[in-house]
Amino acid sequence: HSLPEQENRSVSDWIRLNVGGKHFMTSRSTLLAKEPLSMLARMFADVNNVYLMNPSAKDNTGAYLIDRSPEYFEPILNYLRHGQVILDTNVNPKGVLEEAIFYGLDSMIPQLNQLMEERKSRHDNHSLT
Amino acid sequence: HSLPEQENRSVSDWIRLNVGGKHFMTSRSTLLAKEPLSMLARMFADVNNVYLMNPSAKDNTGAYLIDRSPEYFEPILNYLRHGQVILDTNVNPKGVLEEAIFYGLDSMIPQLNQLMEERKSRHDNHSLT
Amino acid sequence: HSLPEQENRSVSDWIRLNVGGKHFMTSRSTLLAKEPLSMLARMFADVNNVYLMNPSAKDNTGAYLIDRSPEYFEPILNYLRHGQVILDTNVNPKGVLEEAIFYGLDSMIPQLNQLMEERKSRHDNHSLT
Amino acid sequence: HSLPEQENRSVSDWIRLNVGGKHFMTSRSTLLAKEPLSMLARMFADVNNVYLMNPSAKDNTGAYLIDRSPEYFEPILNYLRHGQVILDTNVNPKGVLEEAIFYGLDSMIPQLNQLMEERKSRHDNHSLT
Amino acid sequence: HSLPEQENRSVSDWIRLNVGGKHFMTSRSTLLAKEPLSMLARMFADVNNVYLMNPSAKDNTGAYLIDRSPEYFEPILNYLRHGQVILDTNVNPKGVLEEAIFYGLDSMIPQLNQLMEERKSRHDNHSLT
Repeated sequence: HSLPEQENRSVSDWIRLNVGGKHFMTSRSTLLAKEPLSMLARMFADVNNVYLMNPSAKDNTGAYLIDRSPEYFEPILNYLRHGQVILDTNVNPKGVLEEAIFYGLDSMIPQLNQLMEERKSRHDNHSLT
Repeated sequence: HSLPEQENRSVSDWIRLNVGGKHFMTSRSTLLAKEPLSMLARMFADVNNVYLMNPSAKDNTGAYLIDRSPEYFEPILNYLRHGQVILDTNVNPKGVLEEAIFYGLDSMIPQLNQLMEERKSRHDNHSLT
Repeated sequence: HSLPEQENRSVSDWIRLNVGGKHFMTSRSTLLAKEPLSMLARMFADVNNVYLMNPSAKDNTGAYLIDRSPEYFEPILNYLRHGQVILDTNVNPKGVLEEAIFYGLDSMIPQLNQLMEERKSRHDNHSLT
Repeated sequence: HSLPEQENRSVSDWIRLNVGGKHFMTSRSTLLAKEPLSMLARMFADVNNVYLMNPSAKDNTGAYLIDRSPEYFEPILNYLRHGQVILDTNVNPKGVLEEAIFYGLDSMIPQLNQLMEERKSRHDNHSLT
Repeated sequence: HSLPEQENRSVSDWIRLNVGGKHFMTSRSTLLAKEPLSMLARMFADVNNVYLMNPSAKDNTGAYLIDRSPEYFEPILNYLRHGQVILDTNVNPKGVLEEAIFYGLDSMIPQLNQLMEERKSRHDNHSLT
């Protein structure tokens, strides 16, 4: 096992997000690594990055406020962590697609479209038998 | 990617709702934009709007109290955010329909009725094979 | 749209319940309106109502303690709000039936029994094909 | 309707449990009544009960700490409340079985084994058609 | 029933984890016992263990921060508690597999791969009829 990088992080690398009323904890490196031009990467980029966006307002716990669905944000954040698009069987891929578009995570979109196609064809096959 | 408007919001634009005991965070513009005559739009309209409703009482965190289902409010609020009616496969569309009627979100109702029809016909087909 | 009654409620009409460890917010009128002889209606009835029950103890947030399932309380409370018995597809109607019996919500029981019949026959049909 | 016993309980009869990080509220009588030799009954038995176990440590809210699954504890606690084994359709009965064994709730085990048999045979029938 | 070891634990044996924003409570012995070279075992190993890793930063409640999915951590932690890989029917085994790989829980991986095979073959059988 290679040593996870996590142990070297200081407290200041951790970021609290308030997405639609639910708190998420993640690290700056997770938000930056996958897609540098996505909204989350730009909100937490280095101060001399030309694409830097002003981060949103904070709630009274210091969490950055984002006016989006908390439920569909979970697979988004997992994708930023490990690069896989993984949805539970009850989760509607359309809901995650709307968030991927909002956050500008273009690399997720073809995978989500494919997932929607697969589910649709499974349903159709199922109904035709 | 166009710049999301979120970054320009001040703290005062954020609204905390306590729906049936669960907290949601959203922005005034989300509540106002989609259906100006809906209950939520009227509760948070400009003070000189003739349709303005008195907002409900607040809990001790400053969240506006609404005596309705928190679970079925999630797709309602997502609809106000991006205009799509998106339900997970386990969610009963009847539950969301009751909320759309309560909040006066008339544009959701035909989409929810269609969703209920599709689910019903899928069940019927499935049972008939 | 008729004006929802909600806007005229004062803070004192709101009731916080702690059902099995989870908090719910609702209004006195919701608990009273549907079935006057149910346990919840009697706990929060007018002081000169002969069926008045002593309400249960409160937790340190002022929420009334109820030693029952929080999950199956959700469709119970929604029923008190709008009069419809609505369950998500993964929710076991037997769980809601136990709560309807406990709270004395007799009008829910035939609808829950019918729902259990429909699910059973759908399963049976499905297995027989 | 007979009067529920709940209204006569004092605050000291209520017990807060922290199961794997999630809080549950219940009453001493619920934990004691069903199976006197189960772990939970012994933890909260009368001080002169020979089977009395030392209760576990408490968290900073006074909740007794239990190092087990919170999700699968829900049907366990409901069983102690009303005596029925009720699982939602997405819940894996194996998960509840592990908890019933841990807590020493022997009367649940045959019912859970039967439930696992029924689900297995339904799956097998389904796949064979 | 053998006496569970839990009753002899002191408060200092309890560990609070903040996984992606959600709190979990468990004990040091649960994290250490199953796989001594896993990341969690090494983070909480004895100080003279040569494989000891520096634990991650703590949040303001004293919980150790881990930048991973909370949802898929639940079956991981249950596995450390009782040694069984148990997933609800709606949970995607791929999501748990990513976490097992991250935490270095090698003994879970063959079981998760087998589970993914079983689900795939059930789906294929189902679609072919």
